[in-house]
Amino acid sequence: MTERLVVIGGDAAGMSAASQARRRRPRRNLEIIVFERSGWVSYSACGEPFHIGGVVDPIDKLVARSPARFAADEIDVHLHSEVVDLDTAARTVTVRRTGGVVEVGFDQLVYATGAAPVIPTMREADAQGVFTLRTLDDATAIKAAAATATRAVVVGGGYIGLEVAEAFLGLGLPTTIVTSGEGLMNRALDEDMQARVTKAVVRQGVGVHTGIRVDCLVGDQGRVTGVEADGDVLPADLVVLGVGARPEVTLAKAGGIPLGPTGAVAVDDRQRTTIDGVWAAGDCAEATHFLTGVPTNPLLGTVANKQGRVAGINIGGGDARFPGVLNTAITRFGDTEMSRTGLSESEAAAAGIRCASGMVESSTIAGYMPGAEPMTVKALCERRTGRLLGAQIVGGPGSAKRIDTFVAAIWGGLSGHDLAMSDLSYAPPFSGVWDPVMIASRRAADRALGVTT
Amino acid sequence: MTERLVVIGGDAAGMSAASQARRRRPRRNLEIIVFERSGWVSYSACGEPFHIGGVVDPIDKLVARSPARFAADEIDVHLHSEVVDLDTAARTVTVRRTGGVVEVGFDQLVYATGAAPVIPTMREADAQGVFTLRTLDDATAIKAAAATATRAVVVGGGYIGLEVAEAFLGLGLPTTIVTSGEGLMNRALDEDMQARVTKAVVRQGVGVHTGIRVDCLVGDQGRVTGVEADGDVLPADLVVLGVGARPEVTLAKAGGIPLGPTGAVAVDDRQRTTIDGVWAAGDCAEATHFLTGVPTNPLLGTVANKQGRVAGINIGGGDARFPGVLNTAITRFGDTEMSRTGLSESEAAAAGIRCASGMVESSTIAGYMPGAEPMTVKALCERRTGRLLGAQIVGGPGSAKRIDTFVAAIWGGLSGHDLAMSDLSYAPPFSGVWDPVMIASRRAADRALGVTT
Repeated sequence: MTERLVVIGGDAAGMSAASQARRRRPRRNLEIIVFERSGWVSYSACGEPFHIGGVVDPIDKLVARSPARFAADEIDVHLHSEVVDLDTAARTVTVRRTGGVVEVGFDQLVYATGAAPVIPTMREADAQGVFTLRTLDDATAIKAAAATATRAVVVGGGYIGLEVAEAFLGLGLPTTIVTSGEGLMNRALDEDMQARVTKAVVRQGVGVHTGIRVDCLVGDQGRVTGVEADGDVLPADLVVLGVGARPEVTLAKAGGIPLGPTGAVAVDDRQRTTIDGVWAAGDCAEATHFLTGVPTNPLLGTVANKQGRVAGINIGGGDARFPGVLNTAITRFGDTEMSRTGLSESEAAAAGIRCASGMVESSTIAGYMPGAEPMTVKALCERRTGRLLGAQIVGGPGSAKRIDTFVAAIWGGLSGHDLAMSDLSYAPPFSGVWDPVMIASRRAADRALGVTT
Repeated sequence: MTERLVVIGGDAAGMSAASQARRRRPRRNLEIIVFERSGWVSYSACGEPFHIGGVVDPIDKLVARSPARFAADEIDVHLHSEVVDLDTAARTVTVRRTGGVVEVGFDQLVYATGAAPVIPTMREADAQGVFTLRTLDDATAIKAAAATATRAVVVGGGYIGLEVAEAFLGLGLPTTIVTSGEGLMNRALDEDMQARVTKAVVRQGVGVHTGIRVDCLVGDQGRVTGVEADGDVLPADLVVLGVGARPEVTLAKAGGIPLGPTGAVAVDDRQRTTIDGVWAAGDCAEATHFLTGVPTNPLLGTVANKQGRVAGINIGGGDARFPGVLNTAITRFGDTEMSRTGLSESEAAAAGIRCASGMVESSTIAGYMPGAEPMTVKALCERRTGRLLGAQIVGGPGSAKRIDTFVAAIWGGLSGHDLAMSDLSYAPPFSGVWDPVMIASRRAADRALGVTT
């Protein structure tokens, strides 16, 4: 008997699930139908700021696989097809598309609706010239607006805020970032590291207003003219709101799929919801924190790809498990790179975990080599055990990807002392003889254990 | 009572030991005397090729700490002072220096004599224009010779051969590498990866002759004029022999310090030799392989620094242990980077370990980003367990330092599947959404376990 798998949402999580299921079960055994409300599937949302900045053009370079390629794998992709209702008892989805509304039955369902940008409830938030960035269509619209804009304000100092500001800077568009955080990247980094990011962004020519809550936008005849914060108005004819995103769970609620404490869909490590044959993956789903075991909602493309893959393998008859997240992230602003993984000091404190940090101000490569740039590495170790809990890096080219060394170390349960004496690579064009990763780890472990090594 | 520590050899291992011992024991408790036969201490041998190439100048930029700075820490450094005899029963060293020979007693001894370059026994090996590269004085001499040379041959295709050839290329000096290996880096990389390095070096303008054993050098009136190999003569007025190095153990033998199976000084994980109060560290000493437990002699600056540190902490009354090596190494040739860690396929086979490899040809950053360059990652996993055993990387800028992720993963005992699903960082300027490190790890583990994930 042929089963039918319906996938709601055709980006990373949904298409990974579809592809993996197809690899294991042929068409005669499993029909796969994907409904995607936009005109795109399988695209790199993370690449959108680079399209806005003109670095990646045309935009379809961001599409990893076209609907035609999925069709060749007998995965039926329906674009501009929005699922507007979900009945998990009757096992049907209701789909609105050109020509009307249809009802489609399913045996298995992958819920992969992603997340929607948060739009603060405030005056003129819907004025012309105000954007959020999530989809390729958003990117196209912002790029078009930037071509004629004279002054931009980006609200939000996280990844999207920074990346959009960098894109605008590249276009020569005067840009200011406004954030309620003490510094930029305030949800990712501790304050000491935020300060380094903020300084780097200002140095490179973007205005930054920290610790400021936006009161409202200001408009004139339906077009945005400024951002009002703390009583002052920053003039702007282009405003991008990058203040976060929330999991798209409207349909999940309609279908009675239970949500978890984060407000995203609750899943087990096989990406199963509590409803038989209903799976969830990606930004709309929760992910367990690798260290604390607490449900999180990381909203990261890597997680979406992995969770979709896990769901698809399991639907295909395999046995895959998603091991959890460290909320690892990385980005850059111009020549300044930044990354983080695991717990920050503030997160550890919030989780009641006693820890100590170690920091080193060093250089990206051997200090005597031309091109050496400052790099700061901060590591966090658990008190009593010395176990590595997290790390943050801010620095010049070649800094940030070193975070992966910490990820692997945390994954293997290494202490800061273990990593400090591990056999990391060294040559002058790549690091000092003691890689700053090792020095920060040792300092953190020394402080965590109250020793000097 | 004041003890006296004598350190033989003032580079990475010796000076690290001296510094760490001093940190823990003041002058009134421990007198520290370092004898160094050259005119330099605490210098970066790994940086020498960059001085030759004119990238780092003047050469004293390569000196991390001057004798004056050690003197400020009450560490007495004696330059141009060669220890010519060692009596571990009488606990004395005999030192030759300007003005004659003196005998100095010790309570503790750190044997840190380093390694000497291998000079093949062949005709004209001592002709003018023939060099090895080990010390700063060697680097100075090669740089001076390169200034007037018209054609160079580098014998040996390992790290030193490659780095010297890159330096010569940068100086515009026509250069050919001759190696007995099937490809360049043949002791570090498997054949498939060697081929990539060889191709990159040739593409960048250096001649490469592989699989060729040098018969002899050719000279005229005491000056080198060519390199004879397989009956042909490659003309050259500058020849650098980079065919390896051997631990400096003459004094160890004289003093009855036992050597291990590699021919280097045998040490335990505290850097103790079997003679009470006599320690050894760095290139002259063995280092246990982290995976196989077999003694090795890695001849790497990182190992020298760590072993010296361990010896110094223990002399100072602390308790430090050296955890072993993966023979991690990294270098570059122009815009091509390469690195390796753990076991190669051939090493695993030689050690009787059954394993499988996984390889991926990918790009350094997201494929749609400008600046994306090819990168090949190869991982090795143990059969039956899937445990990661080693990795090799060859690729464009940003490739090679990723080897550290494998180092940390191996250190923590991760399987290829563990690393493949770990939370490594991703953003388009840094990698594809599945970092090639993850893909290679998964493929290797799949093949090792005979599964498809």
